Amino acid sequence: MNFLTKLRTIQRKNQSLLCVGLDADIELIPKHLHSSANPVLEFNRRIIEATSDLVCAYKLNLAFYEAMGGSGWQTLRDTLSCIPKSIVTIGDGKRGDIGNTAERYAKALFDDLGFDAATVNPYMGYDSVEPFLRNDKHGVFLLALTSNEGSKDFQRLNVGGKPLYERVVQIAAKWNIKKNLGLVVGATHPDELRSIRSLAPAMPLLIPGIGKQGGDLRSAVCNGCNTKGELAIINASRSIIYASSGKDFAAAARKEAEKLVDQMRGFQK
Amino acid sequence: MNFLTKLRTIQRKNQSLLCVGLDADIELIPKHLHSSANPVLEFNRRIIEATSDLVCAYKLNLAFYEAMGGSGWQTLRDTLSCIPKSIVTIGDGKRGDIGNTAERYAKALFDDLGFDAATVNPYMGYDSVEPFLRNDKHGVFLLALTSNEGSKDFQRLNVGGKPLYERVVQIAAKWNIKKNLGLVVGATHPDELRSIRSLAPAMPLLIPGIGKQGGDLRSAVCNGCNTKGELAIINASRSIIYASSGKDFAAAARKEAEKLVDQMRGFQK
Repeated sequence: MNFLTKLRTIQRKNQSLLCVGLDADIELIPKHLHSSANPVLEFNRRIIEATSDLVCAYKLNLAFYEAMGGSGWQTLRDTLSCIPKSIVTIGDGKRGDIGNTAERYAKALFDDLGFDAATVNPYMGYDSVEPFLRNDKHGVFLLALTSNEGSKDFQRLNVGGKPLYERVVQIAAKWNIKKNLGLVVGATHPDELRSIRSLAPAMPLLIPGIGKQGGDLRSAVCNGCNTKGELAIINASRSIIYASSGKDFAAAARKEAEKLVDQMRGFQK
Repeated sequence: MNFLTKLRTIQRKNQSLLCVGLDADIELIPKHLHSSANPVLEFNRRIIEATSDLVCAYKLNLAFYEAMGGSGWQTLRDTLSCIPKSIVTIGDGKRGDIGNTAERYAKALFDDLGFDAATVNPYMGYDSVEPFLRNDKHGVFLLALTSNEGSKDFQRLNVGGKPLYERVVQIAAKWNIKKNLGLVVGATHPDELRSIRSLAPAMPLLIPGIGKQGGDLRSAVCNGCNTKGELAIINASRSIIYASSGKDFAAAARKEAEKLVDQMRGFQK
């Protein structure tokens, strides 16, 4: 099944645009899990069990696993094996390197770990992105306009009368030969999200920045979806996974996810 | 000792601008090493032993280690422990993420693995770079104009009459409060290397692209060094580490490294 079909299928099945970011941090997960053999894995497993019927995707930011040291890679692998096969998995590493090296990153994320999709940085150009695009069962989300404060430093620079991020969107459309390329657009930029959706009507958009970062959920849904109310993937990490630091953390995460999904369904109408 | 002092000290001691890229690939290392407990580590160890008096730095591209799967992280760590403490180590991951996440990457590279320096992608702006800059014993190389074909796609776009990469250089100079920020500039762009050196007279420049990628060594040295003939770090990976696929691979790597260093010293005069 190609990536776009997998995404559409799970969004319809679970009636959900929600992506939960499994950015587990040993310092933030509930204390009572610290006695587990692998506390982060146990945390992730419980969050997945509690939320998997409510999401279209899980996103794992690789930085959190690299910061674990040697056990991080195996924790990534073991976490992925807890995720039902029908749900999209996104390896959020924002990689980008020369072609010969980008091939290694793609191999690590797609072949070795088995992610469905990856986030990629556009700065190094086509040969840094192409190795991720070769097989249409794998999706790629190219950074366009990111959710953070620093997005203004380069992404909004004026390039021939348009911001740089629009140039990224235009070039991405040309690179999207196999229909497996999407974009990352922060929910913290609702107007730009609308304009990017109009420039890229058929591409999946990965939208971080709601919750702790302050992005508005209504505009993420209304401006981020295509005309069928689909293909927006709205990520929430900390607001869900750390909804409670007690023994009820998984139930609290589910409750928070349900709340978001209910709100999103309302906005989709 | 701060990063810039460490770099200057080893460049003077070894009279060398050479950085060897330890981009070991199990498919390319000599067959007779495959019976070792960890062939990539054994390969790296032998290359380091054979070349450490000829280099100022070793650069490890993280993609090659991630592609090894679970053993990659430990191989990175064990390789670093083989490198004499006086030599600069560069974790080449081209990372970049929102501040909260960039902190994790910086922690992984500097605190957990113990690299002296890291390469960072500028696209996400200041908060994605700042966590790497906090301690002046750590160096950061920000991608400016990379050695690959794709560097033309975005890095050369016209921003207010100047190419985007020049804007990166200008902004990097402002971010360089602790004097630990440098730039990545490909040897495949000799004229631009000269103009970047004139814009950033005191910053270290990490210069990949000689050897297999076709960059010219003379212009890398002459255009990349500061007025004292220092602070260019010229990387060669495949041309050195795969100089021979036989049992003489380490001696062949040394011979190739010696040849490059002799040429560089000639160009420095």
